[in-house]
Amino acid sequence: MAKQARSQITREALLRSAGLVFSEQGYAATTLSDIVAAAGVTQGSLYFHFESKHALASELIVRQHANARATMEAVPADGRGIDTIVLLSATIAGQIADDPIVRGGMRLSTESPRDFPEVATRPYEDWVTACHAVLARAVAEGDIAPGRDVAAMARFVMSAFTGVQVVSQALTQWDDLFPRLREMWGFMLPDMLVESRRTEIPRILAIIPDRA
Amino acid sequence: MAKQARSQITREALLRSAGLVFSEQGYAATTLSDIVAAAGVTQGSLYFHFESKHALASELIVRQHANARATMEAVPADGRGIDTIVLLSATIAGQIADDPIVRGGMRLSTESPRDFPEVATRPYEDWVTACHAVLARAVAEGDIAPGRDVAAMARFVMSAFTGVQVVSQALTQWDDLFPRLREMWGFMLPDMLVESRRTEIPRILAIIPDRA
Repeated sequence: MAKQARSQITREALLRSAGLVFSEQGYAATTLSDIVAAAGVTQGSLYFHFESKHALASELIVRQHANARATMEAVPADGRGIDTIVLLSATIAGQIADDPIVRGGMRLSTESPRDFPEVATRPYEDWVTACHAVLARAVAEGDIAPGRDVAAMARFVMSAFTGVQVVSQALTQWDDLFPRLREMWGFMLPDMLVESRRTEIPRILAIIPDRA
Repeated sequence: MAKQARSQITREALLRSAGLVFSEQGYAATTLSDIVAAAGVTQGSLYFHFESKHALASELIVRQHANARATMEAVPADGRGIDTIVLLSATIAGQIADDPIVRGGMRLSTESPRDFPEVATRPYEDWVTACHAVLARAVAEGDIAPGRDVAAMARFVMSAFTGVQVVSQALTQWDDLFPRLREMWGFMLPDMLVESRRTEIPRILAIIPDRA
């Protein structure tokens, strides 16, 4: 195997291990020795790839944000807006459950936004923009009343998801994220939808996989 | 002035300065020198009161939690439940706006719950318990339908407030917390209340002071 390919594999393994360690311990309590031990590499190997704990954490946040942007862009443009926004939230929840890089990046960006100013506010702003576009589609499709303040609704959807995710992490290390997410939409959809579409709520909630 | 009283004043000044510095910079980026500089005391004076950054941060979290408990207990028992839960959220928002110890404790406990395991999950659990009791009163008073899952609603109220607070901190260092809080209740009250009480939403929203 080419040296470069091996180096790339080590780098990915380091990022995944760092993601898990940061997601469990937080930024302040994590040492580079913890990450070296979890990754099963040498300290020298870690320093070859990342010059500091801050550099490693920044890379995780950047990767998680890139991942979130890819998720926003990969969303099917032909689905109904209201289905799409629920699907988006479930997709992110699935990534938190399964992807160490997302777990680490998510914890780091919610716990220490001002330690990473280059990536602190963009993810929130991008999510609000993405939610706004999808909710505007839902208005055009007659699921949300035309008079609603969709910009405010987008901000609230993003904030509520953030809160559900932060609390689920604090209390259960995200073990109860899926049931809490279903609960969240159960409380929000009745107000979001026009009355004639509320019969669809059980169908929409079923978009969220029955995990954990 | 007695030596003990002066010592107590210095300790409070240190906590207030530390609260502001932690709330602006986060735990990881804050050094004891930053706090010494902000408080205008000597390094020796800081070490006389707190043995480490972790000890200072723990004290802030403990104080903020004690403050939150006092807030829950001070809530008038004679107000309507639905008014009370909105008032509680506005009271906490006011403390975040005005009290450096609450600002610091709030940021530290949402950013690093697992760095402070002794105080990590209790505040969330206490808030859910307090919200649950107040919402149960709202059911008894006919504002919330008896069939609603009030335990889940309490969890969601607490999570949504957490998200609004975390996002407001990340994007504006809490400058927009009051308008965002009013928005949150504007989205949540229509689903929470029975139909015949929804005409009261403007009155209930007016409980939140018109700040910032």
